[in-house]
Amino acid sequence: MTILSPHPGARMSAELAQRSIDTVRTLAMDAVQQANSGHPGMPMGCAPMAYVLFNEVMRLDPTQVDWPDRDRFVLSAGHGSMLLYAALHLAGFARPNLDDLQHFRQWGSPTAGHPENFLLDAVETTTGPLGQGVANGIGMALAAERLAAEFNRPGHEIVDHRVYGIVSDGDLMEGVAAEAASLAGHLRLGRLTYLYDDNAITIDGRTEIAFTEDVLARFDAYGWHTQRVEDVTDLDALRAAIAAADADERPSLIAVRTVIGHGAPNKAGTSKAHGSPLGPDEIAATKQAMGWDLEPFTVPDDVRDHLDLSERGRERREAWEQRFAAYREAHPELADEFERRVVRGELPADWTDALPTLDDKAATRQHSGAVINAIAERVPELFGGSADLAASNNTDVEGGGDFSATDRTGRNVRFGVREHAMASIANGMALHGGVIPYVATFLIFTDYCRPAIRLSALMQQRVVYVMTHDSIGLGEDGPTHQPVEHLPALRAIPGLTVLRPADGAETVAAWKLALEHDGPSVLALTRQGLPPLGDRPEGAVERGAYVLRDVHPDGDEGADPQVVLIGTGSEVQLCLGAAEQLAADGVAARVVSMPSWERFAAQDQAYRDEVLPPQVRARVAVEAAAGFGWERWVGDAGVIVAMERFGASAPAEKLFEVFGFTVEHVTEVARGLLRA
Amino acid sequence: MTILSPHPGARMSAELAQRSIDTVRTLAMDAVQQANSGHPGMPMGCAPMAYVLFNEVMRLDPTQVDWPDRDRFVLSAGHGSMLLYAALHLAGFARPNLDDLQHFRQWGSPTAGHPENFLLDAVETTTGPLGQGVANGIGMALAAERLAAEFNRPGHEIVDHRVYGIVSDGDLMEGVAAEAASLAGHLRLGRLTYLYDDNAITIDGRTEIAFTEDVLARFDAYGWHTQRVEDVTDLDALRAAIAAADADERPSLIAVRTVIGHGAPNKAGTSKAHGSPLGPDEIAATKQAMGWDLEPFTVPDDVRDHLDLSERGRERREAWEQRFAAYREAHPELADEFERRVVRGELPADWTDALPTLDDKAATRQHSGAVINAIAERVPELFGGSADLAASNNTDVEGGGDFSATDRTGRNVRFGVREHAMASIANGMALHGGVIPYVATFLIFTDYCRPAIRLSALMQQRVVYVMTHDSIGLGEDGPTHQPVEHLPALRAIPGLTVLRPADGAETVAAWKLALEHDGPSVLALTRQGLPPLGDRPEGAVERGAYVLRDVHPDGDEGADPQVVLIGTGSEVQLCLGAAEQLAADGVAARVVSMPSWERFAAQDQAYRDEVLPPQVRARVAVEAAAGFGWERWVGDAGVIVAMERFGASAPAEKLFEVFGFTVEHVTEVARGLLRA
Repeated sequence: MTILSPHPGARMSAELAQRSIDTVRTLAMDAVQQANSGHPGMPMGCAPMAYVLFNEVMRLDPTQVDWPDRDRFVLSAGHGSMLLYAALHLAGFARPNLDDLQHFRQWGSPTAGHPENFLLDAVETTTGPLGQGVANGIGMALAAERLAAEFNRPGHEIVDHRVYGIVSDGDLMEGVAAEAASLAGHLRLGRLTYLYDDNAITIDGRTEIAFTEDVLARFDAYGWHTQRVEDVTDLDALRAAIAAADADERPSLIAVRTVIGHGAPNKAGTSKAHGSPLGPDEIAATKQAMGWDLEPFTVPDDVRDHLDLSERGRERREAWEQRFAAYREAHPELADEFERRVVRGELPADWTDALPTLDDKAATRQHSGAVINAIAERVPELFGGSADLAASNNTDVEGGGDFSATDRTGRNVRFGVREHAMASIANGMALHGGVIPYVATFLIFTDYCRPAIRLSALMQQRVVYVMTHDSIGLGEDGPTHQPVEHLPALRAIPGLTVLRPADGAETVAAWKLALEHDGPSVLALTRQGLPPLGDRPEGAVERGAYVLRDVHPDGDEGADPQVVLIGTGSEVQLCLGAAEQLAADGVAARVVSMPSWERFAAQDQAYRDEVLPPQVRARVAVEAAAGFGWERWVGDAGVIVAMERFGASAPAEKLFEVFGFTVEHVTEVARGLLRA
Repeated sequence: MTILSPHPGARMSAELAQRSIDTVRTLAMDAVQQANSGHPGMPMGCAPMAYVLFNEVMRLDPTQVDWPDRDRFVLSAGHGSMLLYAALHLAGFARPNLDDLQHFRQWGSPTAGHPENFLLDAVETTTGPLGQGVANGIGMALAAERLAAEFNRPGHEIVDHRVYGIVSDGDLMEGVAAEAASLAGHLRLGRLTYLYDDNAITIDGRTEIAFTEDVLARFDAYGWHTQRVEDVTDLDALRAAIAAADADERPSLIAVRTVIGHGAPNKAGTSKAHGSPLGPDEIAATKQAMGWDLEPFTVPDDVRDHLDLSERGRERREAWEQRFAAYREAHPELADEFERRVVRGELPADWTDALPTLDDKAATRQHSGAVINAIAERVPELFGGSADLAASNNTDVEGGGDFSATDRTGRNVRFGVREHAMASIANGMALHGGVIPYVATFLIFTDYCRPAIRLSALMQQRVVYVMTHDSIGLGEDGPTHQPVEHLPALRAIPGLTVLRPADGAETVAAWKLALEHDGPSVLALTRQGLPPLGDRPEGAVERGAYVLRDVHPDGDEGADPQVVLIGTGSEVQLCLGAAEQLAADGVAARVVSMPSWERFAAQDQAYRDEVLPPQVRARVAVEAAAGFGWERWVGDAGVIVAMERFGASAPAEKLFEVFGFTVEHVTEVARGLLRA
C-alpha cells in the first residue's frame, strides 16, 4: 500500500483551493437550477471532499479513462451526481463537457439524474438506490485484492489501486450496506476509503428523527478503521484522515461533518437544500456570500488549470505502463494473462474445451457444480461463492480454498448469510473487471438480492446468479423457501437472462451462455435429480426454446403435431411423459423445452414459428411456478399448468402430485384441450 | 415494566428441569428423524432457552391462544421449528398435538418445516427467511408500545406484554435485521428481549469463516442493552440475564453460547447437526449419553405436568381480565375501543363516512394523502409512515406528531432509509393487532421490501403499501428510480392485491378496499397530476376493472365497441383521449379502467365478459410499465403499449412522449389493429 505525498497543488494558495471548491458548488447550483430538478445540497456540502480526492489523492487519467490500475471512485450517494459530474469535468475528462453540465437531467444527455455507468465512461458504477454503491465499492476492493494476489509479484506491484467513495446517512441506514460492511471488515479489505457525508439531514428532516445510532462504533464492531473529521472545510484534517485511512490495513470509514447546501444563506443545513433547486434568489445570495460574480456555468481559467489532471494523470498512467513493461519482462505469461483478463476482458480462447459432457441423472444444481469445477482451472477469472449455502448450491471449487483475510488466493468466497450484499458486491466485482463473479443462494432469495440484480441488468454486468432449489421440488422446507412467483418476476426485468435448464446438457449450455454474453444471467436449478433428456440440436439452448422431441403415434411417423407441450427445467420430463401417453392415444405431440424466454423472444419470427407453429393452437405450458405471463407462449387457446398459490411443507413428490405436476395430469389437460 | 418472579417451577429439582429440556431435545431428534428432513441441531442447542422462556418467563395461556395481553414469542431462526412445536406442545396448547409432531413436515400437518402462522394459532409469525423474525418482533413491540400509550391509564396497565425471540447468527447477518435493530434502538423499544443462539456454526462451517464482527458492540452502537451468557445450560445465568433485559428500558440482546446438536456425541458442535436428521445411530448414542431409554416421541408424565401452562396461563389471563373489568369501570369508552380494535379487529362502523370525495386534478399520491388525513381521526388504528420520503409519499397525518422514543402518542413513524425493515416491521405490527400499518416509499423500492411483501401475502396480513412515483412519470431521477418491471413482479405474488388508481375517486376506493380486505395491498400512485375521470358505477374499483366509458362516433350512439382500450393509473386518460380520436374516425371505442388485475380475475366470467366482450378481439393495453403478462387481457390479437426497456433521466413529459405514452400513439396503435 502506497501513501501518496500530496500533489504540489495541495500547497497552492488557500484562495485557489477555495475558488476551486466554490466552482464545484456553483456548477452544482447552476445545473440543478437550469434543470429545475436535482439535489444541490450534497455537492455543495461535499465539494471539499471531491476537491481533495480528485485533485490530490486519486490516481486517474482523464486521457485514458479505463486505465486498469486507476483508483475507483464510487459516489454511493448518487443523488449528489452533480458533484461527480463537476469533478470529472474539472479534472479534464472529455465527458461530461460543459454542454453536458448544462443539459443535466435532460433527454439524451449523459448527465443523468443519478450517475449511470453506461452513459459516462468515467462513472464506475450506477448509483442512486441507496446502499448499493457502498457494496459495489466493496466488490471492487475485493476484486482488486484478488487480482493483486494473482498477479503481483515481488517488486512488481502492478495491481496497486484503491477504492474511494462518498457515502450518505441514507446509504448507512440501508441493510445492504450493513451486510457488505460486515463482510468487508471480516475480509479486511484495506483498499477501501469511504468518506461519510455526515450532514445530520435527511429528506424528512434532521437525522435525529430516525438515525441516532453510533455509526463509527458500529463500523468499529465490523472491524473497520474509523475516524472523524469535524469540519469538511478543514482540508488539512481531511487530507490527514485520508492518508491515515490509506495507510491502515482495514477498510476505512471517515465521518466528515458537512453542512448540506453549504453557503446558502437561508437553506444551508436544512432539508430544503436537499432535493430541489435553490431558486434564483438563494443562488444569488449564495454566490454573493462567496464573492462569486461570474456568469452561470463559468469555470475560472486558473481553477481549470489547477484542477486539470490530464498531465498528472497521464504521467501516472505511463509510469504504471513502464512498470507493466518491466513486469512483462519478468513474467511474460502473467502479463499476457493480465491483459487478457483485465485489459481485454476476454475468455480464454479454448475455454469451451473444458466444458464437460453431463448425461447422468442428477439435479441441475449438481450439474452446475460439475461445470464450475470442470472449467475452474481454465477460467481462473471465475470467482465467487454462496451466501452460506455452498454445499446446497454446489458452488465450491473443490480444493480451491477459501478467499479470506489471510489468504487472497482462495477461490471460494464465503459471503455469509448476506444475499443482498453478495449480489451488490458481485456487481462491483464485475464492474472492476478481471474477474467474472458468480454468486449463489436459493432461488427464493432472489427476492433478497433483487435491487442488486436489477442493477446488474441496468448496468449490463456479467454476473452469474446460481439459484438453486428452484420450485416446490425443494420440498419439506415449505412455502417460505419454495419459489413460486420468482421466475416471472425475474423474467420481467429488462436485460436479465433467466435460464432454467432441464438436464445436464442444458445446464452446460446455460453456463456457456451465461459466461459468453454481456449482461447478467440467473440460472434456476433444481434440488431434485433429473434424467438426461437425450440428444438435441447444436445451439438449441442458446436459442431459448427448441423442439426437444416430436412424439408420433405408432405407424404415423412424421405426423404434424396436434398439441405442443412446453416445459422448462424439471417439468420438461413431464411433457415427454405426457407426449408418450398422448401418442398411445393416437395423438401427435410436440415437446418444446424452453430454458429461456428472453433468448427465444430474441429469435426471428421464422424460428419462433418453427418451434411453436402458429396453426397449432392447442398448447400446454408446464412449469412448477406461477403461471404469470405464460399466455404469451400458449395463446388464447392454451392452458397453463402452474402454481396458483404458495407451496406447502411436504416431501417434493407429494407436492408435485397434489399440485398437478404429474404426467397423468399434463396428459389429461392436453386431452381436454383436444376435446374442446 | 414488570419483572416476573420466577415461577415455583424454577425452583424444582434440577433433575426435572434437565429431563424437561431433554424432552424437547428428544422430540426434535425424533420428529426430524421420522420426517427424514429438518434441523435437529438448533432445538437441541436452544432447548434450555425454550424451557426458561415458556415455563418461567412468558405469559401465555394455552386455553386461550389469542389473549390480547399475552407475551409474543418469535422464533426468528425458523428452521429450528421443532423447538417451537415441542415447546408449544409441552406447554399444553391443543395444537400441535403429539400426532402433529409425528407428522412434522408432512402434507396436511400444521407442523410445517418452518413455523407458519396460518397453520397454528400459537405461532405468532411465519419465519424462515432469515432476519424477518427479528424485524417482525420489533414491529410487535412497536405496536405494543403504541397501544400502551393509547390505552393504558394510571393504575390501568392493560397493555403490559413483551416480545421474546430467539435469533441466529444468520438472522444477525441479514441487512433487514440490522435496519430494524437500528430503528428499535433509536425508538428505545424496551419491550423486546432477544436471545441470540450463538453457536459459532453456520451451514458452511464455523461462523468464523464469514462472521467475525463484534455483534454485541454493534448492538451497543444501536442503543441496545446487551449481555452475554457463557453457557446456555447455566439456567440461573439465563434467568438473570432475561430478568435484567426485561428490567432495562432499551431493547435487549443476550448472546447465549450454545452447542448446536447439544449432546450428540459425534455431531454436536458441527454443521452436520444443522440441517439433516442425526440418523438412528447418532440418536441412539445421544439418548444413551443423556440417560434416556424411552420410546421415540415419549413425554414423561412428570415432565408433562411440570411444563403444562394451562392452569398458570389461565390464571394469568383471568387476572388480566379482572384488570380489564376494572379498566372498563373507569374508562368505559376506552374499553369499548380496545375491544373493537384489539379483540375484534374491526373497523369503526361508520368509518366510510369519513372518506372524502376527491374530484380535483392532482397526483394520486396527493389524493392518497388526502384520504389518510380524512380518515385518520375516525380510524385511529391506522398507523404508519414512510422510509424518509414522507413529503413525497404524502403519508404524514398532519398535526399527528412523530412517534418517538419520548412520545408514544405521535401518529407518524419515521422509519428512516430502511425500506426492508419498514415492511417487515409492518408485518409484525399487523400480526400484533390493534393497529393497521401503512408504509411508504417509491414504487421502485418495493424491490427492497420484497421479501417482506411476500410474507405479508403468505401470512395474509393487512399491510397497506403506499408506493408512489409509480412510473417513468417520476422523470429526471432516471432509470434507477423509475419502476418498470415492478407492477408485473408484484402482480405475480399470490395473495397480494395491487391497485393502481387513475384519479381521486379510484384512489379513495383503493384505500377503502385496502382497509376492508384481509391481506396486503400495494397502492401504486403517481408523482404527476391526473385529471378526474368523471362518474363511474358504484363498486367499480372493487371489481378490479370496469367500463369507464364507451365512446361512440357521432350519430351512432350505442354502437358496440370495435376496440377496447385498457389502461391503468395515469394511462387511463390516454385511453380516453384515444377513444375520442377514434370516435372522430367513426370507430366505437371502449375504455376500460383496470386498477387491479387480482380483483378483476376474481370476478365471475359473466362480469369479465361484460367488461371485455370475447368477440371484441381488437384490444390495446396501455401501461407505462413492463408489458409482461398483459397478454392475459388483450389476447392473441391484442397489442400492449408498454415499456420494453429501462427508463431514462429526463422530464416526465418528454419520457411519456419518446416511449409512446401519448394519445396519438395509442390512437395509432388502435387504428393499426383495426386495419389488420
